[in-house]
Amino acid sequence: MKGKKANESFTMMTEIVLPNDTNTFGNLMGGRLMYWMDIAAAIAAQKHSNAPVVTASVDNISFENSIKLGNVVHIEAKVTRSFNTSMEVHLRVWGEDIIQKYKYKSNEAYYTFVALDPNSRPRSVEPLIPETKEETNLYEGALRRRQLRLILGGKMKPDDALELKALFFKD
Amino acid sequence: MKGKKANESFTMMTEIVLPNDTNTFGNLMGGRLMYWMDIAAAIAAQKHSNAPVVTASVDNISFENSIKLGNVVHIEAKVTRSFNTSMEVHLRVWGEDIIQKYKYKSNEAYYTFVALDPNSRPRSVEPLIPETKEETNLYEGALRRRQLRLILGGKMKPDDALELKALFFKD
Amino acid sequence: MKGKKANESFTMMTEIVLPNDTNTFGNLMGGRLMYWMDIAAAIAAQKHSNAPVVTASVDNISFENSIKLGNVVHIEAKVTRSFNTSMEVHLRVWGEDIIQKYKYKSNEAYYTFVALDPNSRPRSVEPLIPETKEETNLYEGALRRRQLRLILGGKMKPDDALELKALFFKD
Amino acid sequence: MKGKKANESFTMMTEIVLPNDTNTFGNLMGGRLMYWMDIAAAIAAQKHSNAPVVTASVDNISFENSIKLGNVVHIEAKVTRSFNTSMEVHLRVWGEDIIQKYKYKSNEAYYTFVALDPNSRPRSVEPLIPETKEETNLYEGALRRRQLRLILGGKMKPDDALELKALFFKD
Amino acid sequence: MKGKKANESFTMMTEIVLPNDTNTFGNLMGGRLMYWMDIAAAIAAQKHSNAPVVTASVDNISFENSIKLGNVVHIEAKVTRSFNTSMEVHLRVWGEDIIQKYKYKSNEAYYTFVALDPNSRPRSVEPLIPETKEETNLYEGALRRRQLRLILGGKMKPDDALELKALFFKD
Amino acid sequence: MKGKKANESFTMMTEIVLPNDTNTFGNLMGGRLMYWMDIAAAIAAQKHSNAPVVTASVDNISFENSIKLGNVVHIEAKVTRSFNTSMEVHLRVWGEDIIQKYKYKSNEAYYTFVALDPNSRPRSVEPLIPETKEETNLYEGALRRRQLRLILGGKMKPDDALELKALFFKD
Repeated sequence: MKGKKANESFTMMTEIVLPNDTNTFGNLMGGRLMYWMDIAAAIAAQKHSNAPVVTASVDNISFENSIKLGNVVHIEAKVTRSFNTSMEVHLRVWGEDIIQKYKYKSNEAYYTFVALDPNSRPRSVEPLIPETKEETNLYEGALRRRQLRLILGGKMKPDDALELKALFFKD
Repeated sequence: MKGKKANESFTMMTEIVLPNDTNTFGNLMGGRLMYWMDIAAAIAAQKHSNAPVVTASVDNISFENSIKLGNVVHIEAKVTRSFNTSMEVHLRVWGEDIIQKYKYKSNEAYYTFVALDPNSRPRSVEPLIPETKEETNLYEGALRRRQLRLILGGKMKPDDALELKALFFKD
Repeated sequence: MKGKKANESFTMMTEIVLPNDTNTFGNLMGGRLMYWMDIAAAIAAQKHSNAPVVTASVDNISFENSIKLGNVVHIEAKVTRSFNTSMEVHLRVWGEDIIQKYKYKSNEAYYTFVALDPNSRPRSVEPLIPETKEETNLYEGALRRRQLRLILGGKMKPDDALELKALFFKD
Repeated sequence: MKGKKANESFTMMTEIVLPNDTNTFGNLMGGRLMYWMDIAAAIAAQKHSNAPVVTASVDNISFENSIKLGNVVHIEAKVTRSFNTSMEVHLRVWGEDIIQKYKYKSNEAYYTFVALDPNSRPRSVEPLIPETKEETNLYEGALRRRQLRLILGGKMKPDDALELKALFFKD
Repeated sequence: MKGKKANESFTMMTEIVLPNDTNTFGNLMGGRLMYWMDIAAAIAAQKHSNAPVVTASVDNISFENSIKLGNVVHIEAKVTRSFNTSMEVHLRVWGEDIIQKYKYKSNEAYYTFVALDPNSRPRSVEPLIPETKEETNLYEGALRRRQLRLILGGKMKPDDALELKALFFKD
Repeated sequence: MKGKKANESFTMMTEIVLPNDTNTFGNLMGGRLMYWMDIAAAIAAQKHSNAPVVTASVDNISFENSIKLGNVVHIEAKVTRSFNTSMEVHLRVWGEDIIQKYKYKSNEAYYTFVALDPNSRPRSVEPLIPETKEETNLYEGALRRRQLRLILGGKMKPDDALELKALFFKD
């Protein structure tokens, strides 16, 4: 397993907000957006692993700006790091009102996927090779986020989360 | 504002996994489930606030078991606490294979919503009154989760998150 | 076959009326509601029979009040009685404008389902045990409704429908 | 109001059963079919009234044969009679496996619609003029079915339903 | 292979334009209409071939009038001619505002389908027998349109398209 | 009106083929693909015109390879040239089986859109500036394709289509 570059998993998705995607204010519903993000992130994870994948977890997502009916939704996904059988995918989402030439950030998020073999059992995936400065930062942060995920999922004790500890209480 | 009981926001949703909700393994896609959870949680938040609401954030979700094609999805949502204009909603999700009498946990999650006035501006919501032991635990934990959300969203410094600190380093 | 309590089949479904569910007046289309009712009732029938089920018939439905765009749809379903291989399910449907705290009845209905074995042939289901006063009334009425169904379907002669006769022309 | 011929409302709809329309046996779900029937019948009622319409009621429907995945669904709708502000629509539904040249009846049904004026209030519709023998039979039967609907809806006493009585006890 | 009459493949489809089918002007999106046309045309091609079919190509389509939200879409499809394993289907599409008694042409189009055997390989289809004057014109034109398709697809040289040449430059 | 570069309209869309998008062979239906292409192309045309757009016409499309259930659909769209109030958009579509590392061409197509002002009337759009060799070829070919469209739509006489004539009979 020689590894695969971060950029090889890059996935770009573009959608338009249609009436049924909106709440009564004419804004894209959060759940509908998370559905699209799940598909974009799953494609990125498949590109890295060349295997079918299932969503294992989704990290905290904050929705910063509502995306309006008729606006365009831009979703970019890229694998940040792999851990044995799982991969973390970083997503960036923007809305765009093309008529008014106004593009705005909706949110950033991390989804984690597990690669499966034909019997639906987890299978190992290649290491990820970060190249750019940003990819390296995302690669390093992936360890901390994974610790937080394990603590929040009750699978790790806070005291064992050394990287996370260092982040939260720098002294 | 005299407050409203947790139980008044209780919402139960039931769905069946149809072919288009599944990936190539015949399992419910994570994104489709998050879409349903968003609707169930939004209804709970509306019940508490009697106002239209928008999804502000979603906490870390871990998917424990896949829900199969044809199985039933049970979603229960209840507001845990309100903060000025926002409400945290707790969700529990199970899958059920009724034919085989097998019910299994899928995940637990927290969604946060903001109540809006007719001009789409945040409006204050009533305090939540927990009654049962479990509601009280959820109510108290809401503060810690909110601090974690603010830190993860870059809106609070880790050192100011006293309740969260106490959780991570109990000594 | 010792029987199963009515309450064990109880199913509660909650939906929001989205734009594509509505006609040009912004009201939920009757056909869309019957689709949701079919799924809720099928789940109730599955709970009673622990077998896959298919819709056999739907009784007369009167829509009393239109449910509006953005309103919540509440559907409750419970098996009233079983007949060899079929089950009658009683449904109650309400609309709710949560913002205006206004809940209103949409309709009541009866759907009938047949339980199937793995070869798609009808299979016997357990008797239903009514417990409350209301469940007993529904249980008893099920016989009359079944006669009406058989007559309307051309499978029974009106003169043989003793219970129905007694209901219609009490003398 | 000089009346309008039955045939002017004739509507033919054709659909294919797609994966998401089916249950786990690969058969069209009853609720999905009722959704399509509602749209076909609403178009027929609009053709007769040249007004927007809403579904008022649906009569007893028996599903005779399951329609399979990939098969074609044929729905024919025609107004049978009008009553002040409402219209009864008769529907016939067939399934067809074109590859195997096999066409089979699914069901027959009656939907009732109310015509609305621009303020959403019931408005009067023209009388229906039956021409063929079959249209005349449907026209005459419409009165009995309406009485049954009113009795089942609790809006008429059985003893006042003269036409229906004559049907049940022919002597 | 004795042939089959054009009329035997005739297919009529009726749809209503719902909110999610429209762009921000409330007009039916071209892509949604082409989706419905594809299904109607595929049914016509199946009727002629009694075999499963796949879309091979779609000829130039010009959209003449927008179809409005809530209006009815009428689609008529009929096979014009068969070529070994493929069939050309002619489609006519109208919109109709029933309330205002206004019916208008949307477009005319030609879709081509290939019939498949159970191994997904092209299989031969019966010759088409045109009967009316219009069917004969469509039958004859099918040869020219096929040449244009082959040229545009890079599978025929312009100089070999004798019928097409005669059409374009009559001298 | 100083013009806008071809590349500024570039749009990339990524979708996964879900069960309901497929025919009984498990292949993406042509109509569903044309629906996605219409949305991708409309976004490209909006990017060039910064105005709402409606689909005016679609050129001949040949589907070369079927895209399978679960495969990824890649759609790329870019404006090739503008004509007063309309724009031609070039689309390229591939399918990809990521697991088997197999990417294959589905089709190439041209959609034409008209830009609208707030009263739904055609409004002028900026000229397109091609930069690369390929963009220049597409720009030049746009004139021929436009002539063919006008002839096929009955709006131009074949003898007036000088560029097209030159293509068909190069001598």
